[in-house]
Amino acid sequence: MEKLYIIKIGGNIVDNPTLLTACLTAFSKLEGQAILVHGGGKLATQLAISMGVEQTMVEGRRITDEATLKIVTMVYGGAINKNIVAQLQSLGVNAMGLTGADGNLIKAHKRTGTSIDYGFVGDVDMVNTNLVKQLLSNSIKLVVAPITHDGKGQLLNTNADTIAQSIATSMSKHYEVHLIYGFEREGVLSDVNNSDSVIALIDRPAYGILKNQKVIFEGMIPKIDNAYLALEGGVQSVIIGKAEKLNQLINGTAGTTIKI
Amino acid sequence: MEKLYIIKIGGNIVDNPTLLTACLTAFSKLEGQAILVHGGGKLATQLAISMGVEQTMVEGRRITDEATLKIVTMVYGGAINKNIVAQLQSLGVNAMGLTGADGNLIKAHKRTGTSIDYGFVGDVDMVNTNLVKQLLSNSIKLVVAPITHDGKGQLLNTNADTIAQSIATSMSKHYEVHLIYGFEREGVLSDVNNSDSVIALIDRPAYGILKNQKVIFEGMIPKIDNAYLALEGGVQSVIIGKAEKLNQLINGTAGTTIKI
Repeated sequence: MEKLYIIKIGGNIVDNPTLLTACLTAFSKLEGQAILVHGGGKLATQLAISMGVEQTMVEGRRITDEATLKIVTMVYGGAINKNIVAQLQSLGVNAMGLTGADGNLIKAHKRTGTSIDYGFVGDVDMVNTNLVKQLLSNSIKLVVAPITHDGKGQLLNTNADTIAQSIATSMSKHYEVHLIYGFEREGVLSDVNNSDSVIALIDRPAYGILKNQKVIFEGMIPKIDNAYLALEGGVQSVIIGKAEKLNQLINGTAGTTIKI
Repeated sequence: MEKLYIIKIGGNIVDNPTLLTACLTAFSKLEGQAILVHGGGKLATQLAISMGVEQTMVEGRRITDEATLKIVTMVYGGAINKNIVAQLQSLGVNAMGLTGADGNLIKAHKRTGTSIDYGFVGDVDMVNTNLVKQLLSNSIKLVVAPITHDGKGQLLNTNADTIAQSIATSMSKHYEVHLIYGFEREGVLSDVNNSDSVIALIDRPAYGILKNQKVIFEGMIPKIDNAYLALEGGVQSVIIGKAEKLNQLINGTAGTTIKI
């Protein structure tokens, strides 16, 4: 099967022009099919402040009311997505930026039945694999913003890690999929203050132990849970590490590899 | 040749949810290939005000400085484009929203050498007709935001009428193209205060006379000039009229038809 790299870059990369350019340059040199999924970053919060839209955070998550949904649609689907696309085009990559609404790429439903009302937040139901195959086979590299839709006209704010995992899992029927979570650190660290303490390999038993020891905590847990969902869904490999070291992450000389 | 309808809707339609829904419903019922090009509207100005970004207008045109470019990228490429796409998806249309940067759809260059410095404003150089053909043949209806790129990483604010005309002209080699400029009026009016005074047909001699008599003035002049560029470039017909009467505009029972 043909290789497909799905690379997710987080808000800290998106917020930093130098890191972003390094990461996009690495992305432009990738051989084979590739999809970039980007997160949000501080821009949405900054815009909300300057517009006087109050942001409610519950347990570290942004509540997406109507005004916030408009902001994230503008920032993620507009400013960030289109700037990444324009920059990739300048690097010779025929990039195309899409939200989940575009071409019905990702259908989701509004999260309900939780104790917290997250507002216009979507949980993924379906990835349009035909569209993805079609575009990839036309030498287009996709840049996906973390916005989905419900098919009834409603846009939904959706976690970028989950989007990357959903696309990776869905596409694993058609490609040998490698999922890379790029962020600002070298990988999963055994000592959060020491960037040399990268854990090269985490399997299920190790993950359990590291969670118990609180070496892995907070935001890293849903990331690794997503990694396992992807691996169980047929994804070949999941690697977490520094976004701009994309090539080393892929050839296994940097980052943390997650295994079943 | 297969028919292709290119429909441009202006800011006044985009700003009015009722008109917009009526127009998108009409668009969803169109038979054959179709591309929707949307303008900006008041949202960008409102956002600029709430962000404290001063807007400079020279001779009715917005000067696009860096902060304004970011705003129009967010509003046109994000909020407006994605809401139209989500709404069309809910109407059963497989819509895909693109700027000129996406898939290298429209390449432009920054306007220079004019007495006024318009800032990050683009003049169109090239439309990627292969991409358009490819997407249309996959039953995708395009929704194009008035943002282009220069291929060197720079996004550019670009007039939506010009984008519609450029796509129409370029595609006329491959399709029988009909270009429709939808706006808030019934068509070109002989008496601006009387919506029953639609001029059904304007040819070159009539256009000259109507301009001299100042029946046609201001914003209508570049619109009709664009229409002639399209007709001279091979477009089959250009019709100007009320956006929500799309079907009547197409079958010739409403609006103003521009002829060579």
